[in-house]
Amino acid sequence: MKYLDLIQEKKPLIHHLTNWVTIYDCAQVTRSLGALPVMAHAKEEVPEMVMLASALVLNIGTLTKDFVEAQILAGKAANKKGIPVVLDIVGCGATKMRSEASEQILREVKVSLIKGNYGEISVLAGHDAEVRGVESIGGSDKIDEAVMSLAKSHNAIVVATGKVDIIGDSEKVLKCEEGHEMMGKVVGTGCMAASVLGSFLSVCDKNEHLDAAFSAMMYYGKCGERAASKSEGAMEFKMRFLDEIGIQKV
Amino acid sequence: MKYLDLIQEKKPLIHHLTNWVTIYDCAQVTRSLGALPVMAHAKEEVPEMVMLASALVLNIGTLTKDFVEAQILAGKAANKKGIPVVLDIVGCGATKMRSEASEQILREVKVSLIKGNYGEISVLAGHDAEVRGVESIGGSDKIDEAVMSLAKSHNAIVVATGKVDIIGDSEKVLKCEEGHEMMGKVVGTGCMAASVLGSFLSVCDKNEHLDAAFSAMMYYGKCGERAASKSEGAMEFKMRFLDEIGIQKV
Amino acid sequence: MKYLDLIQEKKPLIHHLTNWVTIYDCAQVTRSLGALPVMAHAKEEVPEMVMLASALVLNIGTLTKDFVEAQILAGKAANKKGIPVVLDIVGCGATKMRSEASEQILREVKVSLIKGNYGEISVLAGHDAEVRGVESIGGSDKIDEAVMSLAKSHNAIVVATGKVDIIGDSEKVLKCEEGHEMMGKVVGTGCMAASVLGSFLSVCDKNEHLDAAFSAMMYYGKCGERAASKSEGAMEFKMRFLDEIGIQKV
Repeated sequence: MKYLDLIQEKKPLIHHLTNWVTIYDCAQVTRSLGALPVMAHAKEEVPEMVMLASALVLNIGTLTKDFVEAQILAGKAANKKGIPVVLDIVGCGATKMRSEASEQILREVKVSLIKGNYGEISVLAGHDAEVRGVESIGGSDKIDEAVMSLAKSHNAIVVATGKVDIIGDSEKVLKCEEGHEMMGKVVGTGCMAASVLGSFLSVCDKNEHLDAAFSAMMYYGKCGERAASKSEGAMEFKMRFLDEIGIQKV
Repeated sequence: MKYLDLIQEKKPLIHHLTNWVTIYDCAQVTRSLGALPVMAHAKEEVPEMVMLASALVLNIGTLTKDFVEAQILAGKAANKKGIPVVLDIVGCGATKMRSEASEQILREVKVSLIKGNYGEISVLAGHDAEVRGVESIGGSDKIDEAVMSLAKSHNAIVVATGKVDIIGDSEKVLKCEEGHEMMGKVVGTGCMAASVLGSFLSVCDKNEHLDAAFSAMMYYGKCGERAASKSEGAMEFKMRFLDEIGIQKV
Repeated sequence: MKYLDLIQEKKPLIHHLTNWVTIYDCAQVTRSLGALPVMAHAKEEVPEMVMLASALVLNIGTLTKDFVEAQILAGKAANKKGIPVVLDIVGCGATKMRSEASEQILREVKVSLIKGNYGEISVLAGHDAEVRGVESIGGSDKIDEAVMSLAKSHNAIVVATGKVDIIGDSEKVLKCEEGHEMMGKVVGTGCMAASVLGSFLSVCDKNEHLDAAFSAMMYYGKCGERAASKSEGAMEFKMRFLDEIGIQKV
């Protein structure tokens, strides 16, 4: 696949400011794809680190005020350099702080791709939905509409993950039905998807972002299916899932 | 088993403020049980997140002054809401800071269940014991007495983990001999036990807490035994252990 | 092997102030070796925790200003107690902050062993090299010279990891060709090596440090080879690698 080949060839550095729960998995999935992960969050160094990077992945899973400020600094540097920024709005809608942080980052940083589960994306689009902690409870009614309206207002690609992943811009949505229910039993599959999206976006132009995001989710889902067919439980699945991603077979 | 069925049915949110070493494992074991984990520690959001939760799990494994303050804020919110609070006193007795943090949290928050290894529980009960880092060296002499006296002074369930797990209240102790020595070779089995205890307590009333805690430890130990019988090393064991927990077979 | 037997026998406490990405793996590899890991970074407690420890491992992988200060406090306490200090200069050369932190720690703390990949060690020695995030791009031309000059100026053992690991003091370098390319596909093998080095150094005298460091890298590499022969992907490899380390067979 074009994007996978380009990642292998260019070994892009993917700079993350992510959460403390799945930080290892985000780094590893990036490495398995053939890209180079770096996790760095000190305000003193993020602008400089971004200058070495080919994409920036922001995730508010275990946010603090200070951490969000570092993310904004990094995001502004990424905008200056012109590299894609992926924002994973973990828990948006669960607390006021998470909703406000999502909006603040989107206000101050030009984000290329917004990712969340059905609930998070619905809440951010101003629809009704319940987010219990970091889990989506419902929010699927008008998800296509939520994706497109968010895409329009932020001039970004939007990815809403769920049983069917919705990948859209302001004009259309694509649906990815690949994947396996086992993915929902493993903590971190959502966060890792953002790293995969960031890696795919890092090797193409803005006009290819929708295609790259769709390809990323299709590849991710297929790897999940292959891994599930060989695994007896969630943790064995997680191991084999990452190893399927590393094989880079389409 | 009643508690496992209830967890599956209610999908309780288990809010953790835990350490940075085993934070993933605490989240995953909660997810494997069928509950929903959330890790959030910003002072600005913990009171609001607690309001969505059915139990709160506190762990001082990589404490800082600021983090303990966030734990106390979360604990007070949990008390207000009336949900169970589990406190894992990791390293209590190893440093003054850890002993004081344990006592401070217990002074300011009504804790439902105190968990530690033999050494930590012995030290907190005022007995002699050595805690080397986060490992118990001895402290088993009068462990039943330590458990009951702590349970009495804090009106809480106390769980002391070791070769035999001691689960007690102010009047009696129950002994859980399930488990496998392999569990001691994996970093995080203690921390994950606190998440399992929190999940079990989240679905029952206070008068069932002793039974729920005992059932949790029995289930945890049995899953360990089953996993050990299929594993060649500590990491293979860890994978299979979490997968056994996910099967929810008693 | 002498060092492995001593670790088993003494169960040394290895105090880490490390990064948030691989903190679990650093703890687990230490435990698998038979030593006791502890991760503690609060300024209030590090000097006291160091007093219980037999070695200190510092890693700047996700550094902040505050964290480096805590590392220096811990390092000074370790010097006072006379236990070995291992410093892993993750990303030295990638940003000014990482290069300065490496130099500041080395100025204020007497470090027993400096570890980095070819790029990081080359940069610290004042040679030309590229460090992309935390990955070495080149820097292998005069690596023996870089190792010995750094060893001389800091009166320390220096370990440069790469296809061939270079372990040296001011007078000579030893080369470890054990290992497997799979190790480069797993995030954290570098960080875990520092924990293994710290564990080996913790059970011997200063005049044996070069031999202990070489033995550690040989053992680590051999475990990697054995694990690779049984594994199909990077994550299965990681599991079996840690389990090989736990077998303690030379």
